[in-house]
Amino acid sequence: MVLLDGLGDRPIEELGGKTPLARARTPNLDALAAQGVSGLMDPIAPGVRCGSDTSHLAILGYDPHEVYSGRGPFEAAGVGIDLEPGDVAFRCNFATVADDLTVQDRRAGRIKTGTGELAAALDGLQIDGVQVLLKEGTEHRAALVLRGEGLGADVTDTDPHAVGERIHEARGDTAAGSRTAEALNAFTRKAHELMDAHPVNEKRRASGKLPANALIARGAGIHVALEPLGRRHGLRAAAIVGMSLIRGVARNTGMELLSVTGATGGLDTDMVAKGKAAVSALKDYDFVFLHLKAPDICGHDGDFEGKLAVLERADEMMGVIRDGAPEAVIAVTGDHTTPCKAKEHTGDPVPLLIRAPGAFADAVERFSELDAATGYLGRIRGNDILPTLVDLAGRSEKYGA
Amino acid sequence: MVLLDGLGDRPIEELGGKTPLARARTPNLDALAAQGVSGLMDPIAPGVRCGSDTSHLAILGYDPHEVYSGRGPFEAAGVGIDLEPGDVAFRCNFATVADDLTVQDRRAGRIKTGTGELAAALDGLQIDGVQVLLKEGTEHRAALVLRGEGLGADVTDTDPHAVGERIHEARGDTAAGSRTAEALNAFTRKAHELMDAHPVNEKRRASGKLPANALIARGAGIHVALEPLGRRHGLRAAAIVGMSLIRGVARNTGMELLSVTGATGGLDTDMVAKGKAAVSALKDYDFVFLHLKAPDICGHDGDFEGKLAVLERADEMMGVIRDGAPEAVIAVTGDHTTPCKAKEHTGDPVPLLIRAPGAFADAVERFSELDAATGYLGRIRGNDILPTLVDLAGRSEKYGA
Repeated sequence: MVLLDGLGDRPIEELGGKTPLARARTPNLDALAAQGVSGLMDPIAPGVRCGSDTSHLAILGYDPHEVYSGRGPFEAAGVGIDLEPGDVAFRCNFATVADDLTVQDRRAGRIKTGTGELAAALDGLQIDGVQVLLKEGTEHRAALVLRGEGLGADVTDTDPHAVGERIHEARGDTAAGSRTAEALNAFTRKAHELMDAHPVNEKRRASGKLPANALIARGAGIHVALEPLGRRHGLRAAAIVGMSLIRGVARNTGMELLSVTGATGGLDTDMVAKGKAAVSALKDYDFVFLHLKAPDICGHDGDFEGKLAVLERADEMMGVIRDGAPEAVIAVTGDHTTPCKAKEHTGDPVPLLIRAPGAFADAVERFSELDAATGYLGRIRGNDILPTLVDLAGRSEKYGA
Repeated sequence: MVLLDGLGDRPIEELGGKTPLARARTPNLDALAAQGVSGLMDPIAPGVRCGSDTSHLAILGYDPHEVYSGRGPFEAAGVGIDLEPGDVAFRCNFATVADDLTVQDRRAGRIKTGTGELAAALDGLQIDGVQVLLKEGTEHRAALVLRGEGLGADVTDTDPHAVGERIHEARGDTAAGSRTAEALNAFTRKAHELMDAHPVNEKRRASGKLPANALIARGAGIHVALEPLGRRHGLRAAAIVGMSLIRGVARNTGMELLSVTGATGGLDTDMVAKGKAAVSALKDYDFVFLHLKAPDICGHDGDFEGKLAVLERADEMMGVIRDGAPEAVIAVTGDHTTPCKAKEHTGDPVPLLIRAPGAFADAVERFSELDAATGYLGRIRGNDILPTLVDLAGRSEKYGA
């Protein structure tokens, strides 16, 4: 399964009223569409504007309404924290604050190095019986986990989402949320104290850089242990993902994370290397999930020419997969639509194609939003995809007699 | 509603890449498609590989996840046992075993006569407060019901599903399952003792036939009383079904079972007689359900020429129904796909057509999997069919004001 993040779009006047996907030269995607069947897919339900995390959960067969309370646990898993049920996790930024905790820079001058030492200085703290786990991500990013009895995810962000404002006091509506908010607020003060005096920041100040002297948290979520995707379907499952949030989803759904040299989760990712890695992984795994973040980045930037170019590069990757895995069941879809004119996720359905040996080919010969809508698959939901693929691979369990 | 068991298929190279349905000459089905609307139907959900029992329950409007625990209760109802809620029922074979209960023939030399006397000798036994109900089916088949307090369906098969193995000891994971397993194991031993010495088997041995001296059980299920389909929709409902499993579904959903001379549930069934019976039944009933097992048999056998021929015979039956019931709402679909190359059920959707006087005709003029996918009905689920038919017949209840 190849997931092109933010794949779908809406008509763009500058592209002659077409979408980047419809306008891009994509001979390999078109060949797969011609050999297989197409349709539209609503990740959760029509009109639901999903995040990448909730959408991925749905596409991988889980009910986000049951298992998702916030992005935190997926960010934490994505940077490699082993979570336990009941942990409350947050996405954090290393930030620069004044003595009164007014935020001066939400990314600490786009700090690149030293975050590992800062995180190590805070990781393992105990606050009122709550254990703190902290791990740096790429650049200014980090994940924070609070572990203890009776914590909850209904806790507001400390990140004010703007400079010039003081770090917010977290608040919770329930007893569990309040307990979590108190621990988070105490941690925020303690972290500022320890970080402000840390040698990493003395050096930064000495060289004229902004100190990373605070952590601002958002996206609280409680960790729910998920039945591994592989166990559910009797598959060995692996994932090729650069972006940490989706790495976390892959990890929390029990997929093995494969590393690929040159895969970054950014626009500069080596797509062909990812395609080759997927082909190679099919020797050892029954299900390989490949995620490309790049189309979504262009969508958010409103860069329709960039999105078109990225999709043409993705098509080159699909050529590698098509040539390398002629017998595989191949699905290509997105996790949501990120129209370049909206610069944000929308609730539109996403095109989907499935090419399976021995199965139908419909009349669709082009991979695009409007073409897909005329295909054999009709309009299905994210939760329907994996059972369909497992069945087309001849690996499904019979239900009944 | 005409249900062609195992109707759907996948492309077959020997048929020019077409399916038996696409390749068959079916002027009556095509005329109904042209007069009506087409679509694809997922009996339960996309990719779910259904048995005939779970699929029929879904198509008839029930939720198999709520009411189905195994085929046993439907097999038992199919041979005419009146079930009570809490009964645990099994599908059985009359078998031949050695003294140590090693299975020598799973069908007792394909026994044809005498099973009624053998069943009568065991029916009504009491074992540790559990009552035994046993009734023979056609040839080597039988249904067994255990009735008593605190029984459960989580009990393993005693049928080893292979010759040369001893009859398995049934096991249960819960208290109710264990109690049921104990009763089943005690019954199995008692049945062997009584059957081995029975005059029917003395005669069989004397004439060189294998004795039917054991019963092997599988498919445990607990009986759940279903609200009759007719009461739900305010209809008098009747069914024309040969095959005992689906007869059981029809009986348990409260439909009246009509008998038709020449209807067998096999390849040799008199389809035209079934069609005439359906037309005639429409005088006395509001809803007539007609089941044809034959296409599924050919699918399991991998016999695509046979499936094509059977579908052409079914088309002749549809001509009788079309001519005889010009004002009826007619639906034709399958319960699942049984592709001739897979020789087993798959999770593909099934073509569906609905012809209703005064309702739409779409552009589809041919009844096939790919044609149906382009039709007005889109892609719906088994649970959606009956409400649609009842509504097209002007018999639906308004929900709201």
